[in-house]
Amino acid sequence: MGSLELGANQYGKAECRLVRVDRDGETHSITDLNVTTTLAGDLAATHLTGDNSGVLPTDTQKNTVYAFARDGVGEIEDFALRLVRHFLTAAPTISRARVKIEQYTWDRMGVHSFSRGAGTRTATASAEGDAAWVVSGVSDLVVLNTTGSEFHGFPRDRYTTLAETHDRILATAVTAAWRHSGLDRDWAASFDGAKQRLLEAFADTHSLSLQQTLHAMGERVLDGDDGLAEIKLTLPNKHHFLVDLAPFGLDNPGEVFYAADRPYGLIEGTVRRSDAPDAGLAWW
Amino acid sequence: MGSLELGANQYGKAECRLVRVDRDGETHSITDLNVTTTLAGDLAATHLTGDNSGVLPTDTQKNTVYAFARDGVGEIEDFALRLVRHFLTAAPTISRARVKIEQYTWDRMGVHSFSRGAGTRTATASAEGDAAWVVSGVSDLVVLNTTGSEFHGFPRDRYTTLAETHDRILATAVTAAWRHSGLDRDWAASFDGAKQRLLEAFADTHSLSLQQTLHAMGERVLDGDDGLAEIKLTLPNKHHFLVDLAPFGLDNPGEVFYAADRPYGLIEGTVRRSDAPDAGLAWW
Amino acid sequence: MGSLELGANQYGKAECRLVRVDRDGETHSITDLNVTTTLAGDLAATHLTGDNSGVLPTDTQKNTVYAFARDGVGEIEDFALRLVRHFLTAAPTISRARVKIEQYTWDRMGVHSFSRGAGTRTATASAEGDAAWVVSGVSDLVVLNTTGSEFHGFPRDRYTTLAETHDRILATAVTAAWRHSGLDRDWAASFDGAKQRLLEAFADTHSLSLQQTLHAMGERVLDGDDGLAEIKLTLPNKHHFLVDLAPFGLDNPGEVFYAADRPYGLIEGTVRRSDAPDAGLAWW
Amino acid sequence: MGSLELGANQYGKAECRLVRVDRDGETHSITDLNVTTTLAGDLAATHLTGDNSGVLPTDTQKNTVYAFARDGVGEIEDFALRLVRHFLTAAPTISRARVKIEQYTWDRMGVHSFSRGAGTRTATASAEGDAAWVVSGVSDLVVLNTTGSEFHGFPRDRYTTLAETHDRILATAVTAAWRHSGLDRDWAASFDGAKQRLLEAFADTHSLSLQQTLHAMGERVLDGDDGLAEIKLTLPNKHHFLVDLAPFGLDNPGEVFYAADRPYGLIEGTVRRSDAPDAGLAWW
Repeated sequence: MGSLELGANQYGKAECRLVRVDRDGETHSITDLNVTTTLAGDLAATHLTGDNSGVLPTDTQKNTVYAFARDGVGEIEDFALRLVRHFLTAAPTISRARVKIEQYTWDRMGVHSFSRGAGTRTATASAEGDAAWVVSGVSDLVVLNTTGSEFHGFPRDRYTTLAETHDRILATAVTAAWRHSGLDRDWAASFDGAKQRLLEAFADTHSLSLQQTLHAMGERVLDGDDGLAEIKLTLPNKHHFLVDLAPFGLDNPGEVFYAADRPYGLIEGTVRRSDAPDAGLAWW
Repeated sequence: MGSLELGANQYGKAECRLVRVDRDGETHSITDLNVTTTLAGDLAATHLTGDNSGVLPTDTQKNTVYAFARDGVGEIEDFALRLVRHFLTAAPTISRARVKIEQYTWDRMGVHSFSRGAGTRTATASAEGDAAWVVSGVSDLVVLNTTGSEFHGFPRDRYTTLAETHDRILATAVTAAWRHSGLDRDWAASFDGAKQRLLEAFADTHSLSLQQTLHAMGERVLDGDDGLAEIKLTLPNKHHFLVDLAPFGLDNPGEVFYAADRPYGLIEGTVRRSDAPDAGLAWW
Repeated sequence: MGSLELGANQYGKAECRLVRVDRDGETHSITDLNVTTTLAGDLAATHLTGDNSGVLPTDTQKNTVYAFARDGVGEIEDFALRLVRHFLTAAPTISRARVKIEQYTWDRMGVHSFSRGAGTRTATASAEGDAAWVVSGVSDLVVLNTTGSEFHGFPRDRYTTLAETHDRILATAVTAAWRHSGLDRDWAASFDGAKQRLLEAFADTHSLSLQQTLHAMGERVLDGDDGLAEIKLTLPNKHHFLVDLAPFGLDNPGEVFYAADRPYGLIEGTVRRSDAPDAGLAWW
Repeated sequence: MGSLELGANQYGKAECRLVRVDRDGETHSITDLNVTTTLAGDLAATHLTGDNSGVLPTDTQKNTVYAFARDGVGEIEDFALRLVRHFLTAAPTISRARVKIEQYTWDRMGVHSFSRGAGTRTATASAEGDAAWVVSGVSDLVVLNTTGSEFHGFPRDRYTTLAETHDRILATAVTAAWRHSGLDRDWAASFDGAKQRLLEAFADTHSLSLQQTLHAMGERVLDGDDGLAEIKLTLPNKHHFLVDLAPFGLDNPGEVFYAADRPYGLIEGTVRRSDAPDAGLAWW
């Protein structure tokens, strides 16, 4: 039984809701964000004795997010990078910083009017010393194919009851995050391209398994952008079960489905470029 | 102290998740619904003695929803009407029926591929005897104006701290429901028109209060469709507070906002046609 | 096609999160509330022209909630009554007021330490002119019987597949609200008694239907407290389905269940005292 | 620009809701679980070609969870271990398995009646080859101290506005997970002890920072149980802000607070035994 020691630790301010309005004459635009800051470094003192002399308060982190927005936000990757670089200089104890941003979708209705759309754009910037990494992504992107999906050829054991199928609904809520090889990027164009390729690959891949669809989506994104090192996808299998209408004297030729909540399959995977530089992200 | 008696009561199956696929050759379409059924009538026996001879099981109600979808769903108002009319005949004890449907938005990506959009279309059909009513609506329609909203001239008392403002963000998540005067309607066209007018009225009304915007939205919907008797709107005031950047030596000319969660203002109101027939909906 | 007019309307501040600490020497106690205020009256001006001279701002309503807590909160029924009576005097336009409070449960761990428990106590006070009504209640009270529940004898039609059962799990999340006949009440004792009787009646009623259990719970509460006029219960039937283990060569004698999310039965009903005074609550 | 390759991947069935009833004569007990299974191994074939011959379906994983419950569940750590060991043998491609279980709290009301309590017990078992690890924990354990918490001495920069405080409310929702050094454990006793020590350390630590409280909680748990190697705690700082009542002519001596939702501080940290064996858990 050895002595006790402080292990990995970090802290920050989660979910700073920031809305920035830009005015170009009568035409306004908005940037609607949820910003989470996380700092780490030599924080033993506050854990062991409550000495906070090295603890940049989470309240100050929040203030910094709002103050930095005064100069404009721009692409969320750039805003996250500005913030992490600042936090590395904000207190001598802080040696690593991470800022994660969710950006909500708004569609223009008029010069100063907007309606909220679906799907969320995400970006995470991490920095330590002179190094920095950026991961971009999407979440809450819900997609569905009514056909073009099969699942068969799987092993059967004592606990197998699933029937093989050659035509099923395939539906998922895409969470994907792709790491950039460098920082000299056109973030907006890169994001638009990656999202478009995710959707296209989902729609046009004839699927024998959700894993195959996942891999096709990941490949499509990396194939279309040399500046990406890897992509991770998390795809819940939102099951749609064909309803048995036979008790009511009815057939059901792939038309009436029950959309289930739980349990759900959960498929996670990464596709990466074999010669990509290491992420350096393996911090908690 | 009088004797006890059974008062108002009802029962049903809530949140039947139904997805219907229609196939027109290679081109598919989907209808994604959340259906809730509610029945009422002479249900004293089951309450008082557990005699279920007059209780159409909620499981049967669910089955009926799925079985009826075999013939197609069509517009949700029609589907709800088919169901309530059936339920009135399904057991002699049942004298009133209500079916509420939420329809989720899907945008086409390909012949059999879809991505989920924002906003929900709703419909509620109610029936008793030979009478039936239909209420259509929307929910989760989140909209925001960056300007064109003021709030001043309100009374001040000991507890007032709010400053008057001549320019603020106005944001809300619209829940609206409009009652049709009759049943001989083009439900799809009516819905599209009402939703469009809600959005336009929100966008182009210069607002002195959220109540004024609410009333303008309601009027616009009724003005555009003679077949509507009344509309009820529920508008949470999703507050966006200008962040005080002065402590950081910065001004904030209407650019950086904090989007608050709770508390929120909640504005509810109805606009109605003065000669509209009574709703007959005043059942729990 | 008649002219348009403003119908029923109301407004207020929803979900003011208020925590009050009372200090009796070293021993502290807490009151953790979610307060929603709603006002109504002659509010046509703001709807029609944006004239806010009669609109007590929702921000002021929020401030009032916090300011009134300075004198102590006490029982939530008393706090709600204090607030509604104040609001009736706060602006000449306001003729009706309602305050709804949710109180979260905390269990004592030490003189100034607490852990959050399950279940929520609720109270709603409504006032108009000299009249006032109070409704107390509970929500999120989740209960389950592993046996003592049957369901059979229901009508069967073309859409029936449900098997009759003489032993099933019965589980629900109780939302109940009981109206007091008057205001001269020991709110704390009344609440404790009502909650206890709800739980006892759920546990010791042999159930032939959830409606029967609902009625027994309502009767038990009213039987135990002459000061109550009526009670309304909302009971989702949280279905637990026996898993078919036969494909795996196993029986399942009432031991292994799948707890479903949706759809769920929803049973609502009221029990009332036949000579109770009318509620006067029939405002939107 | 290198070629693309499949990186880390895993799959499973998330959130199997399982309720097990045990009957000891008239006295019943229940075990209410949410079980998530995750498998990994040589799964390239399904990703690259849709060959599912090595993919144990997530549906089969779910069936296995329910079938294994037929023999009893016991402590969730044991149930998770039984499942992961089975899954390692279920398909030749599967070389790693993880089962995460959440167990909901139920308090006895009668021989077969229960009410749901607060807080969730968790366990995760992971296995690869002959090795296995178990992590136990809690989540949703919400605690609050009304005093005994200070925060001062932190660095101030251009963005600092936070006042130093010598008396504040400290509240958090504890998520904690502790790794066992071995598998020969009395899981129930270990859990009860750890939970009790977490609560005691939260209550009796005079706190100069939430980090100090976190460390004290972790130390207390490890000090009380030689069989634990490390503990990780995630503590959101649920801010309670003293309301400024001065505008209303009132003081506020630590009595009236606003409980905020977002943003919130988020403090994470680990305490570990210096000579503990490595976790081997560093798989995605």
